[in-house]
Amino acid sequence: MFKLYEYSPSGNCYKIRLLLTQLNIPFDRTEINILQKESRTPEFLVKNPNGRIPVLEIAAGKFLFESNAIMFYLSEETEFFPSDKFERAQVMQWLFFEQYSHEPFIATSRFWHMTGKAEEYQEALQQKQAPGYAALGVMEGHLKQNKFFAGDRYSIADIGLFAYTHVAGEGGFDLTGFPAIKTWIERIKNLPRYISITD
Amino acid sequence: MFKLYEYSPSGNCYKIRLLLTQLNIPFDRTEINILQKESRTPEFLVKNPNGRIPVLEIAAGKFLFESNAIMFYLSEETEFFPSDKFERAQVMQWLFFEQYSHEPFIATSRFWHMTGKAEEYQEALQQKQAPGYAALGVMEGHLKQNKFFAGDRYSIADIGLFAYTHVAGEGGFDLTGFPAIKTWIERIKNLPRYISITD
Repeated sequence: MFKLYEYSPSGNCYKIRLLLTQLNIPFDRTEINILQKESRTPEFLVKNPNGRIPVLEIAAGKFLFESNAIMFYLSEETEFFPSDKFERAQVMQWLFFEQYSHEPFIATSRFWHMTGKAEEYQEALQQKQAPGYAALGVMEGHLKQNKFFAGDRYSIADIGLFAYTHVAGEGGFDLTGFPAIKTWIERIKNLPRYISITD
Repeated sequence: MFKLYEYSPSGNCYKIRLLLTQLNIPFDRTEINILQKESRTPEFLVKNPNGRIPVLEIAAGKFLFESNAIMFYLSEETEFFPSDKFERAQVMQWLFFEQYSHEPFIATSRFWHMTGKAEEYQEALQQKQAPGYAALGVMEGHLKQNKFFAGDRYSIADIGLFAYTHVAGEGGFDLTGFPAIKTWIERIKNLPRYISITD
């Protein structure tokens, strides 16, 4: 059985739980407390030399890291990844957008708020506002004209972007000015086998 | 013919040129001067709403952005992307590692040096040293035991990591303590149809 090493409040880990649940694939969960640096122990670095969660243990001693790569592994050949060549690349395009232009601002802001560091990182939080809202603007523009991010249907591109966007408020981002994003969030919450980030 | 919109000194754009050349696929190049914000014009935002280069125009009006997604598009079904499911995911794992844990530190440092902003961003440059060297450490650990990043052969994972690693010195990173990386760089430079970042 797949074994997920995760810090459960992390949106990156939630991506994997949501996808596995929607794929109806059972999995074991092992909590790694990153606040206590449990992802930086010599034992954990064997699983991921980069010291981050999530890590998926696919078979004994066979580890995969990077949330979006794990989703790619799990979804290829399923309804959550397109069969069309260009649409497949569009899924990857949005997943790389998520990791480079979205997550470092929106997810990191949420993490600092969640861990009581908002005051300490006040200036850095302020600097993350503009690029975070810029990423939301790019998403809003796309979702004004499309129901989902690639291939006109729900895919891991949506899961990837949904994970931190639907809890952007927890990082101090206001979605009021992004009606298409809000509609897309509700669309995803109503999909079969949806689970919340706290499930 | 493929049309590459690029800022030619960018390692992200070099990835595409190197791969297309090694695939022996001809392409047109259009220079976008990001220093003059040419990637933020209304005309360019139609190509990439995120306002970044590279963008590959695959057919008239059909655009793909995010360098690693473009490489995925070009390399699937070729020798530069594995056929094995786990190895495919490992390629993506290293490409996401590159964009999240490597590029923001090593590439950005090089960009500030190249554009004469090293003094202005002195403090930020200093802050990028530790995470940049950490990324190099992860690479060194892998390359001590493996010739390439995935599937024991050259793939787009190597191109993705090579692009900014081999010019890390231009951003103030010293590769002296990373002999396995240096050997891997020479290995890549000796591959068929190799072109340099200034070609």
